[in-house]
Amino acid sequence: MTARANLVVGQSGGPTAVINNSLIGVVHQALKSDKIDGIYGMLHGIRGVLDQELIDLRRESAQTLERIRMTPGSALGTVRYKVRPEDYDRLLDVFAKHDIRYFLYIGGNDSMDTVYQVSQVARQRGYELHAVGVPKTIDNDLAQTDHSPGFGSAARFVASAIRNSGYDTESMGPDGPIKLVEIMGRNAGWLAASAALAKDSAYDPPHLIYLPERGVSPEALVADVESVYREYGYCVVAVSEGIVYEDGTSYASAAGRTIVDAFGHEVKQGVVETVADYILDKLGVRARFDKPSYLQRSCVELASPVDQAEAYRAGVEGVRAALNCATGQMISFVREPGPEYAIRYELADLSQIANQEKVIPAEYINAEGNGVTEAFLDYARPLIGGPLPSLARLSKYPVAKR
Amino acid sequence: MTARANLVVGQSGGPTAVINNSLIGVVHQALKSDKIDGIYGMLHGIRGVLDQELIDLRRESAQTLERIRMTPGSALGTVRYKVRPEDYDRLLDVFAKHDIRYFLYIGGNDSMDTVYQVSQVARQRGYELHAVGVPKTIDNDLAQTDHSPGFGSAARFVASAIRNSGYDTESMGPDGPIKLVEIMGRNAGWLAASAALAKDSAYDPPHLIYLPERGVSPEALVADVESVYREYGYCVVAVSEGIVYEDGTSYASAAGRTIVDAFGHEVKQGVVETVADYILDKLGVRARFDKPSYLQRSCVELASPVDQAEAYRAGVEGVRAALNCATGQMISFVREPGPEYAIRYELADLSQIANQEKVIPAEYINAEGNGVTEAFLDYARPLIGGPLPSLARLSKYPVAKR
Repeated sequence: MTARANLVVGQSGGPTAVINNSLIGVVHQALKSDKIDGIYGMLHGIRGVLDQELIDLRRESAQTLERIRMTPGSALGTVRYKVRPEDYDRLLDVFAKHDIRYFLYIGGNDSMDTVYQVSQVARQRGYELHAVGVPKTIDNDLAQTDHSPGFGSAARFVASAIRNSGYDTESMGPDGPIKLVEIMGRNAGWLAASAALAKDSAYDPPHLIYLPERGVSPEALVADVESVYREYGYCVVAVSEGIVYEDGTSYASAAGRTIVDAFGHEVKQGVVETVADYILDKLGVRARFDKPSYLQRSCVELASPVDQAEAYRAGVEGVRAALNCATGQMISFVREPGPEYAIRYELADLSQIANQEKVIPAEYINAEGNGVTEAFLDYARPLIGGPLPSLARLSKYPVAKR
Repeated sequence: MTARANLVVGQSGGPTAVINNSLIGVVHQALKSDKIDGIYGMLHGIRGVLDQELIDLRRESAQTLERIRMTPGSALGTVRYKVRPEDYDRLLDVFAKHDIRYFLYIGGNDSMDTVYQVSQVARQRGYELHAVGVPKTIDNDLAQTDHSPGFGSAARFVASAIRNSGYDTESMGPDGPIKLVEIMGRNAGWLAASAALAKDSAYDPPHLIYLPERGVSPEALVADVESVYREYGYCVVAVSEGIVYEDGTSYASAAGRTIVDAFGHEVKQGVVETVADYILDKLGVRARFDKPSYLQRSCVELASPVDQAEAYRAGVEGVRAALNCATGQMISFVREPGPEYAIRYELADLSQIANQEKVIPAEYINAEGNGVTEAFLDYARPLIGGPLPSLARLSKYPVAKR
């Protein structure tokens, strides 16, 4: 392809604190290319193509683009729309009408399936299209990549939250409550596991982490909590929203509050409430909880600088790959060996990624199934972009009683 | 009193992100005085005196003290213990045994009552004691002071949270959910009101704020939400945990989940869930929610620099007042008139403060009872310590349909 053609970029699925960095990486790199004419944004993902709701990103000011990088949410608008088979023809028609030859889509599993299907249909129709996926998910469950942009920032938020809330709980004293923090991650526990990055010693929060990858009975969970509570005088627990019983059914289902979204995914609710009820019932101690929910994916103030830079770079690399004739592929993060953290950017086939879910491997979960291993910490620590603030405790030299 | 005597300091009630600044302000100022010998900390507030669990703060390193300033929770440990009348004699006995003549207590309404009672009993017994209260509460409901340390940092967190989560919600588009954020404040809506500091225009979140000071019917609330949702395509609501129906009963009670703490205070639960149910029932739209709970009072990363400095200064002024023979008084913040924000520190009688609750005055609440006035914003803005991060939206110049 020698003539200039148009590029379209979209955002899909749940926003992250850094998804707009990927968008601006795409725009900045496209602006540098003399092979690209129009730089279009699709409003609300694939719906913006179906409805021809496209915007001209060339007309946005440099200052706006720069500020968008540090703005939460998805600046183009996002969508949770399951593309129907008949939609693909319509998508290709719109692409052809607008001479769109480069399609960059920033999203997670479902979105990568969309990119894959579009690339396949274009090939079948003989329409030259370079469709490239840019990874995005706080859940970190995309296959064929070391990690995904959005995860590092959410992990930093979670580690910070559990540490701050944990110090608060600790100060309530031996008669104080047990603290539960509910953490996002429907089927993969990467984010809940990241709470462990808050911890410097066994006494520090979190003391226990429960993940969807390992079933746990209420009896075992409460026994764990009791043991910690007796030993340290307080207990702070990271609870994934996706935790399951030993038979694989979810705690959320037990609460009778399961909701199903447009993709047929279960939306989990009431998980920490269910756990708190078990603790009160079996241990007689009230558990309090935090449900930071959407703050986990939107708190720009606590975003990881490493994640911000990598998200931007993923957008840049996406355009480079598309210009280099890639299609049906996703930007993949490959960790370089060696003691210093470094990433190189490669391409992975979307056929190996679409609709897959990468859960936490066994070697990252401790034998008891209630925490993580050093190997996980080594994996996750570089992604949050530097240490958390330095906290302290008093030495508490006693004054002699009189 | 000419001889050197000992000082004791304690922390009480719910921690804040800056309560340790007040503690270190006390310690640093006490270290400067040649009238003070021992500088003792009481572990877990008044219980630490009753049980003679005192620590020697002179032995803590300067570095530890400095790091404690930016550590969440209450470094001495805190307590929610309702002092019984018979405890006061025991407290005075312990003070006398340890020659404690300066008593600094950092806390909210209940704690100020304790300081007041201790000062009265000391006077009756003819025991020379200088008992001074240092204000602390994220609820900002202490009387006789312009505001209280802890509030500014929690307000900054709330404004930040609702803005980040609001941008996230906005990007979900016109078919997206309604977002509710549950905000602390049992009987006073200062913190929920502070969500308004996130807002630059009518389109920005939060669109609606509900406070305990104004009763609202589910019908009126849902009508407000529907109106915003139709006009702006999304709706973000700040909901105080203490909101009440028009007859004054709480939404929490309606959820059948009211819990009563050691002081006989109701602990509210299930408020946003109740509101979400009303919205789904009457409007047919699902509302999602965030319950950041204890993060509101513990997130050191988002603490207000103004609040940090004022909390420290309140501790310093407390020691100065005690050395200056004050007793039965609290450090009071008085705002200087004029366009530049400035505070001077005075003393207020605890008899006017103990067990009072300062709710939001009528002139700070809008006529509809679903938001705040400019006067409130002028009051609250300086306390959060500078503007929130600068965010942006795309201009969205449309591409012509073909």
